[in-house]
Amino acid sequence: MIRVGIVGATGYTGVELLRMLSTHPNAKVSVVTSRAEAGRQVSDLFPSLRGVCDLVFSDVNPDELAANCDVVFYATPHATAMHHAEALLARGVKVIDLSADFRIRDQATWEKWYGVEHASAHLIPQAVYGLPERNRAKITSADLIACPGCYPTSVQLGFAPLLEAGVINAASLIADCKSGVSGAGRKAAVGSLLCESADSIHAYAVSGHRHLPEIKQGLGDFAGTEVGITFVPHLTPMIRGIQATLYATLTAECDLQALFEARYKDEIFVDVMPAGSSPATRTVRGSNVCRLAVHRPQGGDTVVILAVEDNLIKGAAGQAIQCMNIRFGFNEAEGLSLVGLMP
Amino acid sequence: MIRVGIVGATGYTGVELLRMLSTHPNAKVSVVTSRAEAGRQVSDLFPSLRGVCDLVFSDVNPDELAANCDVVFYATPHATAMHHAEALLARGVKVIDLSADFRIRDQATWEKWYGVEHASAHLIPQAVYGLPERNRAKITSADLIACPGCYPTSVQLGFAPLLEAGVINAASLIADCKSGVSGAGRKAAVGSLLCESADSIHAYAVSGHRHLPEIKQGLGDFAGTEVGITFVPHLTPMIRGIQATLYATLTAECDLQALFEARYKDEIFVDVMPAGSSPATRTVRGSNVCRLAVHRPQGGDTVVILAVEDNLIKGAAGQAIQCMNIRFGFNEAEGLSLVGLMP
Amino acid sequence: MIRVGIVGATGYTGVELLRMLSTHPNAKVSVVTSRAEAGRQVSDLFPSLRGVCDLVFSDVNPDELAANCDVVFYATPHATAMHHAEALLARGVKVIDLSADFRIRDQATWEKWYGVEHASAHLIPQAVYGLPERNRAKITSADLIACPGCYPTSVQLGFAPLLEAGVINAASLIADCKSGVSGAGRKAAVGSLLCESADSIHAYAVSGHRHLPEIKQGLGDFAGTEVGITFVPHLTPMIRGIQATLYATLTAECDLQALFEARYKDEIFVDVMPAGSSPATRTVRGSNVCRLAVHRPQGGDTVVILAVEDNLIKGAAGQAIQCMNIRFGFNEAEGLSLVGLMP
Amino acid sequence: MIRVGIVGATGYTGVELLRMLSTHPNAKVSVVTSRAEAGRQVSDLFPSLRGVCDLVFSDVNPDELAANCDVVFYATPHATAMHHAEALLARGVKVIDLSADFRIRDQATWEKWYGVEHASAHLIPQAVYGLPERNRAKITSADLIACPGCYPTSVQLGFAPLLEAGVINAASLIADCKSGVSGAGRKAAVGSLLCESADSIHAYAVSGHRHLPEIKQGLGDFAGTEVGITFVPHLTPMIRGIQATLYATLTAECDLQALFEARYKDEIFVDVMPAGSSPATRTVRGSNVCRLAVHRPQGGDTVVILAVEDNLIKGAAGQAIQCMNIRFGFNEAEGLSLVGLMP
Repeated sequence: MIRVGIVGATGYTGVELLRMLSTHPNAKVSVVTSRAEAGRQVSDLFPSLRGVCDLVFSDVNPDELAANCDVVFYATPHATAMHHAEALLARGVKVIDLSADFRIRDQATWEKWYGVEHASAHLIPQAVYGLPERNRAKITSADLIACPGCYPTSVQLGFAPLLEAGVINAASLIADCKSGVSGAGRKAAVGSLLCESADSIHAYAVSGHRHLPEIKQGLGDFAGTEVGITFVPHLTPMIRGIQATLYATLTAECDLQALFEARYKDEIFVDVMPAGSSPATRTVRGSNVCRLAVHRPQGGDTVVILAVEDNLIKGAAGQAIQCMNIRFGFNEAEGLSLVGLMP
Repeated sequence: MIRVGIVGATGYTGVELLRMLSTHPNAKVSVVTSRAEAGRQVSDLFPSLRGVCDLVFSDVNPDELAANCDVVFYATPHATAMHHAEALLARGVKVIDLSADFRIRDQATWEKWYGVEHASAHLIPQAVYGLPERNRAKITSADLIACPGCYPTSVQLGFAPLLEAGVINAASLIADCKSGVSGAGRKAAVGSLLCESADSIHAYAVSGHRHLPEIKQGLGDFAGTEVGITFVPHLTPMIRGIQATLYATLTAECDLQALFEARYKDEIFVDVMPAGSSPATRTVRGSNVCRLAVHRPQGGDTVVILAVEDNLIKGAAGQAIQCMNIRFGFNEAEGLSLVGLMP
Repeated sequence: MIRVGIVGATGYTGVELLRMLSTHPNAKVSVVTSRAEAGRQVSDLFPSLRGVCDLVFSDVNPDELAANCDVVFYATPHATAMHHAEALLARGVKVIDLSADFRIRDQATWEKWYGVEHASAHLIPQAVYGLPERNRAKITSADLIACPGCYPTSVQLGFAPLLEAGVINAASLIADCKSGVSGAGRKAAVGSLLCESADSIHAYAVSGHRHLPEIKQGLGDFAGTEVGITFVPHLTPMIRGIQATLYATLTAECDLQALFEARYKDEIFVDVMPAGSSPATRTVRGSNVCRLAVHRPQGGDTVVILAVEDNLIKGAAGQAIQCMNIRFGFNEAEGLSLVGLMP
Repeated sequence: MIRVGIVGATGYTGVELLRMLSTHPNAKVSVVTSRAEAGRQVSDLFPSLRGVCDLVFSDVNPDELAANCDVVFYATPHATAMHHAEALLARGVKVIDLSADFRIRDQATWEKWYGVEHASAHLIPQAVYGLPERNRAKITSADLIACPGCYPTSVQLGFAPLLEAGVINAASLIADCKSGVSGAGRKAAVGSLLCESADSIHAYAVSGHRHLPEIKQGLGDFAGTEVGITFVPHLTPMIRGIQATLYATLTAECDLQALFEARYKDEIFVDVMPAGSSPATRTVRGSNVCRLAVHRPQGGDTVVILAVEDNLIKGAAGQAIQCMNIRFGFNEAEGLSLVGLMP
């Protein structure tokens, strides 16, 4: 039984980590930190955890974390994990960062998009990008894991088979993505109010979203070459879920359905639907599955991939636990055998 | 490992039974029936179950059910289970009816509210009302279990401590209840369309709802006397959840908080919140918990009880599994250790 | 054409005033103030007003207001209007306050519930409570109008006919109210986030809500005696709308339907539905109508009144314009002939 | 004052026609038909119209329509208007068809996509496609007007300036569209239930939607050449609204913002937002405006156009009234001066 710390557990990915780890047979949460809520019962803030979690938020203290944890999850905004990672790693504690601090290999790119100087750039090279469907082997021995963002997970899993097979024009991809409001986190912001975001949809960050460089880097890894992509995210009136609708131009004939099924046949958390399907985000609500379908409308040369995931799970907390399972040699699905809540 | 049949599994309680039983260590679904969908993969209708359930809907056939099941759940509208129960019971199969067929002890009352003649009225006396918090002992040996309706569960659990203690005027109770739209089931009806029921609330069936006689019977059992109650249900723009706001006049002084805590201290699926709390339905979304709080505004003689539940779980499928666990001697929480999905 | 000022127009009642006054033939908005948004185009903040309103927010300046307005609406939180009213009134400007500052006649009660000292208590006696269905004649000559709160409007219009007729027990009324999230305003607060308030319902302020003393005062006026009431508001997952479900005990026989129809036969913004009806909030979405239905379930002695309104219109901005129309001798429906948006 | 008939007024476009025409100074609804609801008060079905509309649904009778109407709107599913049009036109009654019957010029294409034989194909050549921003002059004298579909309106208004200017590659356009559930109409269908469509998003009809041939025809008219387009609609969890996110490859340099502003400077119902904007569907909820923004992310050669409209208004009933105003020489905005309902 490993001991788990969660830093920044007052947000939505934090409470999801707590929910899922509560059923994990090999891991037990021992420390939960929050500056704002130190001293408060976790189950007082999140009554859904009454009777499930009897922890109390403590103030953030790397020494305490190091003393009481085998692995620490960072469910914080960016620019927190980068200040703690070195101390924890030095004491043998694994770090699984759900924030953006170690996702981008090029320091200058990261600093440009995140607007701060990187506090531990020397650690970037040892960070492993925590997308199991690409980096499972590396994750096995990684001490610092940078979990992918929610949008990048769905976009990469959708485009990967085509880029690996080299059958699309990688220079002009389009990712039209729709996210539930939980992607904006549990912070008080006018734009995330029910009265501002319900019964309406709108695009945002069309000129450039922070996930764009991560998507380009990730897709480039699959393609083996630089890619060009237009990425337009939309705020969608739902709590959870991302739908990525992906467009590319085919450059070679291939059996798309067979390609996708072959690529993911051993992946337990990627589900390729039968030809002609249209996955709905609600089919993965509360589960760690990314569900895909591939289309070629009217037999033209445009391929359309539909990818859905729960942004808080496969796009965040679930994928982080999946990485932990891989790193510690547990069954990869432990704690993640959750069936989507439908309706 | 017992074998479970589900009749009428194309509705919302059906898919919830399948979801929860998929993790049950002692029970396995062997037969799933549907007239309309016979021959279709269950996971084709409910893609959330892809990779979890590989069953195919079969036509309803009591012989097949009897041959392949130790227990059969009826997740049907009323007036189906009453036609099958005798044949199944005769062959030693337990019947857990989630519909209304065996909830009301008085045949004439049942026939008046449900508008049909009862097809097996002779079985009514042996049916046990499946509210574990009242009838746990009887459920232990019941062969025919009539699971409570969704509204009656929340109203009874809320009023029970006060009625048992005899501290309120049982002749004039008020239950103002708010239900999510899933309470209307998965049938095509204009009133349940998103465009008719979203972003709006309204009362319905004010002159008399079918759950009223069940509520009166159940509360009467707790009170030991006939009760008078005004019950007003409201269609609320959410998928799941019931909030029952209950009002009664105190007739004796008592420590309300202590009374509730004592009554439910051994109940794993009833959670009495601290004094002053206001439970939200989302804290029980996807879980089998009924969460309660008791208030006495301005110290007057009106007591207000707030009760929330997931209408599809503690109000239907979860409670049915809880009854099955009790009947077959399993751990009462088996398959039901689900934490509410929040947000 | 009168000149209108709006103080605090960045909130939801502010934008509703702007929307409705844009079509008013006798009134024109001349000044719109906001501390936080001074200098910004109104239509930049509220793009729905592009092409309709070309005003710019200015900083709050009573002199400017007095010089440029015949009437000023306060769409601010409490404790703002009370600081400006005297100066405006002294210069002949009418004040219509949508906040709570002048609603409560008893200064001590007001200060207890609102937690601040009243800055112009000497003006309280001259304020007229702006419920046209009760005070139309007084509004005709009022210089300072205190518009009712959203909950109090629905509760008073629902109980008024019964209290005036003296046919219910006024000592133990119950008001179970459900409000859309816009009732909490357009301020960044975690509890109003879509992810916190969608797909869920919960009661709040059970021990005492600020609208309680206003409701008691108002109902007392209709009854001619002090009333006792239990008021439980619920946060409901919708943008707009209030449903008040009201319960009382009948003390005399009467034709309830006839009583309600007679009471409101000349009221253009109160609609008594036929016997047996259940009004939905969406039927008044975007309109100034309060829609009522009265029930007597199972012919017992409990009367149930259902009242729905748009909390931002009949519960706030629309009622304020209605008061303005009465005060200035315009047609009472001017600017308010809005049909509910359905679906 | 012209007399208006509405056939099929029990759906969402029907009730919107009634709502908007209730304020029209030059038109009065005289006949409202419905087979299913004949004899019922309109305001009984749509309580939002109580006090506004006192009509009764009558059975469909072309003679009665001809005798009592100057213009008849068809708010029916396809394949109704085509059976009535000739008789009405022969008696001098104008026909404004909101359904698809006369939208497609090529009869074979229409019959392929709609699956029925066209009953009055000889009338197709005289039908004018009712998109005022393209066909205003022709509408002035049209007796048979075929109003555009909801998706085609937003897609055409978004692409038109670029196609007319010849600055994009018309052979490979992409339209990723998101529609509220009201687009599916007011018919009982499982897929439109709140429990099936709330809190989720999914694509549909990826292999081919009925609006595709209409979009291709319309864009081709603007381009002066055949276009190639991939059109993917998505069912979005909201009542009203369409967001079209449009992608094209630039083939020539041009000032995109200036191009759009010049194209629509005289159009009262098309609003080009400032550079960098992201229109939300809620800004046009309840209004006849189509709001546009044009982007060129990272200065690349992909242009992104964002277009939002209320699918029931500019995408249906509002555009139909706009056409009526043009045809009868009324002010084009009469009855349509509705400001979006926000929040």
